Amino acid sequence: MKKIAVFTSGGDAPGMNACVRAVVRAALYNGLEVVGIRRGYRGMAEADFIPMESHSVSDIIGKGGTILKSARFDEFRQKEWRQKAYDNCVKEGIDGLVAIGGNGTFTGAKLLMEDFGIPTIGCPGTIDNDLYGTDYTIGFDTAVNTALDAIDKIRDTAASHDRVFFVEVMGRDAGFIAMQSGIGGGAEDILVPEIPDSMDNVIESLKKGGDKEKPSHIIVVAEGEGIGNAHFIAQKAKEAMPNLDIRVSNLGHVQRGGSPSAIDRILASRMGIAAVEGLIDGKSNVMAGIIDDKVAFTSFDDAINKKKDLDVELNKMVEILNS
Amino acid sequence: MKKIAVFTSGGDAPGMNACVRAVVRAALYNGLEVVGIRRGYRGMAEADFIPMESHSVSDIIGKGGTILKSARFDEFRQKEWRQKAYDNCVKEGIDGLVAIGGNGTFTGAKLLMEDFGIPTIGCPGTIDNDLYGTDYTIGFDTAVNTALDAIDKIRDTAASHDRVFFVEVMGRDAGFIAMQSGIGGGAEDILVPEIPDSMDNVIESLKKGGDKEKPSHIIVVAEGEGIGNAHFIAQKAKEAMPNLDIRVSNLGHVQRGGSPSAIDRILASRMGIAAVEGLIDGKSNVMAGIIDDKVAFTSFDDAINKKKDLDVELNKMVEILNS
Amino acid sequence: MKKIAVFTSGGDAPGMNACVRAVVRAALYNGLEVVGIRRGYRGMAEADFIPMESHSVSDIIGKGGTILKSARFDEFRQKEWRQKAYDNCVKEGIDGLVAIGGNGTFTGAKLLMEDFGIPTIGCPGTIDNDLYGTDYTIGFDTAVNTALDAIDKIRDTAASHDRVFFVEVMGRDAGFIAMQSGIGGGAEDILVPEIPDSMDNVIESLKKGGDKEKPSHIIVVAEGEGIGNAHFIAQKAKEAMPNLDIRVSNLGHVQRGGSPSAIDRILASRMGIAAVEGLIDGKSNVMAGIIDDKVAFTSFDDAINKKKDLDVELNKMVEILNS
Amino acid sequence: MKKIAVFTSGGDAPGMNACVRAVVRAALYNGLEVVGIRRGYRGMAEADFIPMESHSVSDIIGKGGTILKSARFDEFRQKEWRQKAYDNCVKEGIDGLVAIGGNGTFTGAKLLMEDFGIPTIGCPGTIDNDLYGTDYTIGFDTAVNTALDAIDKIRDTAASHDRVFFVEVMGRDAGFIAMQSGIGGGAEDILVPEIPDSMDNVIESLKKGGDKEKPSHIIVVAEGEGIGNAHFIAQKAKEAMPNLDIRVSNLGHVQRGGSPSAIDRILASRMGIAAVEGLIDGKSNVMAGIIDDKVAFTSFDDAINKKKDLDVELNKMVEILNS
Repeated sequence: MKKIAVFTSGGDAPGMNACVRAVVRAALYNGLEVVGIRRGYRGMAEADFIPMESHSVSDIIGKGGTILKSARFDEFRQKEWRQKAYDNCVKEGIDGLVAIGGNGTFTGAKLLMEDFGIPTIGCPGTIDNDLYGTDYTIGFDTAVNTALDAIDKIRDTAASHDRVFFVEVMGRDAGFIAMQSGIGGGAEDILVPEIPDSMDNVIESLKKGGDKEKPSHIIVVAEGEGIGNAHFIAQKAKEAMPNLDIRVSNLGHVQRGGSPSAIDRILASRMGIAAVEGLIDGKSNVMAGIIDDKVAFTSFDDAINKKKDLDVELNKMVEILNS
Repeated sequence: MKKIAVFTSGGDAPGMNACVRAVVRAALYNGLEVVGIRRGYRGMAEADFIPMESHSVSDIIGKGGTILKSARFDEFRQKEWRQKAYDNCVKEGIDGLVAIGGNGTFTGAKLLMEDFGIPTIGCPGTIDNDLYGTDYTIGFDTAVNTALDAIDKIRDTAASHDRVFFVEVMGRDAGFIAMQSGIGGGAEDILVPEIPDSMDNVIESLKKGGDKEKPSHIIVVAEGEGIGNAHFIAQKAKEAMPNLDIRVSNLGHVQRGGSPSAIDRILASRMGIAAVEGLIDGKSNVMAGIIDDKVAFTSFDDAINKKKDLDVELNKMVEILNS
Repeated sequence: MKKIAVFTSGGDAPGMNACVRAVVRAALYNGLEVVGIRRGYRGMAEADFIPMESHSVSDIIGKGGTILKSARFDEFRQKEWRQKAYDNCVKEGIDGLVAIGGNGTFTGAKLLMEDFGIPTIGCPGTIDNDLYGTDYTIGFDTAVNTALDAIDKIRDTAASHDRVFFVEVMGRDAGFIAMQSGIGGGAEDILVPEIPDSMDNVIESLKKGGDKEKPSHIIVVAEGEGIGNAHFIAQKAKEAMPNLDIRVSNLGHVQRGGSPSAIDRILASRMGIAAVEGLIDGKSNVMAGIIDDKVAFTSFDDAINKKKDLDVELNKMVEILNS
Repeated sequence: MKKIAVFTSGGDAPGMNACVRAVVRAALYNGLEVVGIRRGYRGMAEADFIPMESHSVSDIIGKGGTILKSARFDEFRQKEWRQKAYDNCVKEGIDGLVAIGGNGTFTGAKLLMEDFGIPTIGCPGTIDNDLYGTDYTIGFDTAVNTALDAIDKIRDTAASHDRVFFVEVMGRDAGFIAMQSGIGGGAEDILVPEIPDSMDNVIESLKKGGDKEKPSHIIVVAEGEGIGNAHFIAQKAKEAMPNLDIRVSNLGHVQRGGSPSAIDRILASRMGIAAVEGLIDGKSNVMAGIIDDKVAFTSFDDAINKKKDLDVELNKMVEILNS
């Protein structure tokens, strides 16, 4: 292996830049050349390559977003576009890829690998933490702390006005961000897709709050919650308990941005180094994750298809902590 | 004057606690007794008083929200409820009031003053900065910085994906938060109620961005913008320019919370002290504001009815800064 | 078991309040009474108890420091003072203790347990992360992020002036804070007590930086570093390389304060619940830690005497990441 | 005027980049060419110029430090070096300068102006706020908030341990940062060079704290305080009151870094635009400041030599707020 390429794809996540930096520096450390591919698979198909030196990644470890940019590129499902992408890589002399992203990113990498056999290792970069094969994904800790900071602020106003707030957080089909930010924020209730909820339970919880003379109440709602989104649930709650002063806050895209936390920077750095070392060791078609604080490689197949379980015991914690 | 009361009313704002603290400590410094009234005019009508000592306000200068709580109380428009409130004050021996809040708060204070002559001074506590008679209101600087922090985070993700974001910020009928956070966040366009805008101009600005190969674009939209809210404007923009990747983020209630900034703590402290000293000096029916860094008292009538102008020159700045 | 007590002791750490809250709420959830002991062992010896209800711990999960306060109390090494403390516990009807703190705290708990057999479980609360039997201690993640934030700020000024900064961080005899904040901050060198360093190596690293035309340079120095403190090392470096513009910053006590991070709040909550459940299950003389994301109880003896290893592989990362 | 240059000099301050951005964009808006000079006067003497386009200053408004870098250059006091600098400017076709910095920066600009008559306008960039001719300098608000955040954190640990903290903040010969961060942080005492203090007063204040059963105590000490630095004062206090648990924290260089606050970004933008418009209007040898929220030009002579007064009434506030 003489030259590798690194790219980011899918939704951006804080720490992606720290991972790009680690890939570049680890490649140079091991005597490899390294190029960046801008805008993910689109850039690969359009030959949007930039050579990366050590200084190219100076001062980016603390920067949110991704300097390599990211883009949707549905055309990559068609083999002719993957062929173009591969041809560009060959022309550039690239003999290994590091793909930073989530499920969709790894699906693309797997197809490319299956078509043309170019060695590829993935690094899990998504705030949703919904990838099998790693305890945490790059960006998750930062997103949780961003959501927590918002919940703390909302708590100020909820407590001042004895209000009920439904706070919707990101996470796609997974409840990790909701659960962590909700416990951290002392939420009275947390609604996640992994645990069946019902409006009856929500209303029960609100009534219990009223009984305890604890009139301010925060309910964190995961993006993928089965009952519906925060606005829908809030409306139903309002119908059932018209006397409550109910508000909704959807935290939105702020959760993707910001300077990465210490954990995300270190996680991203470890994974980036592991990916490069993995390529050198002949690994491919795998994601470099961290399990129990050790580097672990998981096949793209498993990373994509197996479901990472949310520890439902955490829900018991919520009940205990609201005693 | 022997005993005064302090209360917060209307929407909560960061720095209200710093103001409560200053009122309490300034009263004690001047040999007055002081009580807090919980939940604004509602608490006044329900005799929800709590004695305040120096230690009652320890460690609250940096706390968001209001320890005295706030509440809606539309009944206060009826004289019978104001009578009850006044009777409670008399029973408690209160001979002066400090009212921390916005327009509605001062309207209530003015009615009470006109009915019963109880000396009252207001402190401008609202994130919207929409009160005549003070350069800045308590909570404005913190809200602007909170909005700015969110815009910075959204910029990370906008730049990574070459996206257009419409970011809606608070401010009711005023564009102060939008203008300050928008300039601070380097927004490409800022839509405020004080300046007539049109969808044509918005689309012009988006096109200009495209011409300059500056594909990420942030447009800050004030809550009271005349064209419509951020969702509406984004939809219109999408119809006109379907190729753009357009997103909307409504920052919501986080803008009311959080630990107050240095400026808000100092402003709140100065105003709280000024209100107490004003009462002792025999002033009443006025708001204690700061104009050109000096304490200034403005009649409730003017504070409520006169309009504070947004410096429309700032809009010129936006144009220059996007050259 | 009918009534337990909780206290904090030793240096304060962010998340201690979240742990106190969890102990109180878990006790109530399990039908136990619970009291707080103020100022650690000193308060125990002076019978400074306060009853804790659910609302006693409202709104403290995000608060730095410890509402139960902490204090030095060297007299506790004498049996007569431990006797007094025990007698006070008996008089209060306390039949179980949860001790939140570090090494010294657990040593006291162990002595008390050995003398009088009162069941005691510890929760590891210290920013230093130097306790065997848990992957992370309460407060460590927050302290690392506080140090990281400072390093990021110092990087701004170092880069603007092409300066060399020696930044001293806390950690007593352990290099955990230095290593994590240093990697996260992209430090060019990290000096920790666990790894033998020499001034020659430090100067070598500075020279290498100069060769690469990377004139700004940050070296993180752990409190317990063998060569000496940051001022000493900086002076030696200045003697060897008088042309460098060298500065020192000792981050100091800010590292102990601040609102705890999400991880610290969750960790503290899990450990607090585990301690109460452990007492109910008849456990004693152990610390409730988290290893590989699962609750694990470790004897006080091991927690105090065994050494938690710093992963020295991390130092290899520093080298790679500075390629 | 066809082409101007912008540079930063002296200690860096948050918001300098926002000012550079405003100068560049305002120049382009007005049809001027613009170059950046790296490393201040040193770069001018060494012809270290870089052309600035609109995109050169993209995404820097929120970045701490200065992308143009800063450097000491004592040689500039010698006319021969100023001659070189001027010759380089002439060769580059520069017919106007914007100098961002403090006292030393303006002294250099004045000399250059007097020697060669090249039109120059200054923008006040220093965290110390010690320049006559502007209410606030660029970086001051950010530095105050950074210091305040540190004081808040120290308060957590001071309150937990009933400790006394002496916190030293920056500001050179001026007490602005100390006064603002001290009032904002609820400091029990604030020592600034503008107000004569004595150890007797300090000890008096400490004793008063003890009387009020308010054992934690924070005293903010300005860098230029007459009694001595924080370490010296703490030692004297310890000698006088050996029972107190006294600590010292020198906040150090973190105060210069970090992302600028909203106010600093707007202030810097306004001043940068004003400087360019001033040059076009034929102004020179002046600093562009903001007084009472309006742009005001002050001669370099006055900006350098006149003393900006600290509002000593603020000290009265400290006394009142600690009642």
